[in-house]
Amino acid sequence: MSMPFEDGGRIAPVYPMSTPRYTVYGMRSSGNCYKVRLALEQLHLPYRWVEVNSVAGETRKPDFLARNPNGKVPLLEVEPGKYLPESNAILCYLAENTGLSPAGRWERAQALQWMFFEQYSHEPYVAVARFIAKYLPADNPRAAELPRLRERGHQALGVMEGHLQRQPFFAGACYSVADIALFAYTHCAADGGFDLSPYQAVRDWLARVQSQPGFVSM
Amino acid sequence: MSMPFEDGGRIAPVYPMSTPRYTVYGMRSSGNCYKVRLALEQLHLPYRWVEVNSVAGETRKPDFLARNPNGKVPLLEVEPGKYLPESNAILCYLAENTGLSPAGRWERAQALQWMFFEQYSHEPYVAVARFIAKYLPADNPRAAELPRLRERGHQALGVMEGHLQRQPFFAGACYSVADIALFAYTHCAADGGFDLSPYQAVRDWLARVQSQPGFVSM
Repeated sequence: MSMPFEDGGRIAPVYPMSTPRYTVYGMRSSGNCYKVRLALEQLHLPYRWVEVNSVAGETRKPDFLARNPNGKVPLLEVEPGKYLPESNAILCYLAENTGLSPAGRWERAQALQWMFFEQYSHEPYVAVARFIAKYLPADNPRAAELPRLRERGHQALGVMEGHLQRQPFFAGACYSVADIALFAYTHCAADGGFDLSPYQAVRDWLARVQSQPGFVSM
Repeated sequence: MSMPFEDGGRIAPVYPMSTPRYTVYGMRSSGNCYKVRLALEQLHLPYRWVEVNSVAGETRKPDFLARNPNGKVPLLEVEPGKYLPESNAILCYLAENTGLSPAGRWERAQALQWMFFEQYSHEPYVAVARFIAKYLPADNPRAAELPRLRERGHQALGVMEGHLQRQPFFAGACYSVADIALFAYTHCAADGGFDLSPYQAVRDWLARVQSQPGFVSM
């Protein structure tokens, strides 16, 4: 006999649509925060969104630091008082045992590989260039960082292009959390001055992601 | 009836000790590469080590780029011609369904959270400061980066200290891949000019990691 809402031996509480289980502390203009929203929407998980203006310093205030001592959004409140930071860890948590997480061990490793690539070799260049070019005044001293950020960002885009010439999605044949992680800042790379026209496979992949069920734009 | 060496329905090949299953392309002095070695030793997995001198540019040569287009070590050859880059993805892959991977969903999410923290908020400061201070001549222009790297590195160490005042290990009660990931560059942070004496909980945790079965030093 199987029970409705049974979950790992425990009976999960039934949440009416008006009482979402999850709360996201996030900033709408942030790609890292958008990742979480896109996954929640595609998984049909109701959530409450609390807007936190990171640029205005709200993530460095004591009440926020009590929730995430590392002072960053997004932050997922899994249940009252239980917080999970790091966009890509949140993606893996939400996706576990769903169609967004690869079923095979090798494909799961591939997904993680690309998510760590995203945070180390892509976001620090592609997202930071976007932040400087889109949100800071043109005469801000940080504009001097742009040439190097763009050089390293193009290296990351080149690595993605090579991979996507051989596979439709980052972890193989199926759309997964790795695609969500890399879509977030790649689809708006032009904001940081990146011309995606040389990256045909990347552009085809962006269109494949945008055609996934439940897709929402940033 | 259970078969010896049965593994998920497939009969796993029997490797004599002289034929390791895994090959690691790594650089001995790299903390990211040390993570992989420590996990392999603690999991009693035989491996072959191929030394690659990243500092001398060997990861940017065509034969290496054919294995990892992102040009970084460590790189795990899982089977001939099948390569997995990204130290923390390698850790998760090797640890899956072993005692190094937390058994619970929340603890797995915590482990990933700290591994992404390590790659985004810790390694780019603590490891890069070590590289500049230990491996570059004192008059190298990159020495100018050290004050900012140390400021951000101390922020990361402070976040770790707060967490370890409440929990013995990063994912909770048990030693896991998250501890391996953060141990790698924290235990040698002094090489980058970080004084760990104010971080009592971090120092106690370093000693706990060093006392784990199968521990090997860098």
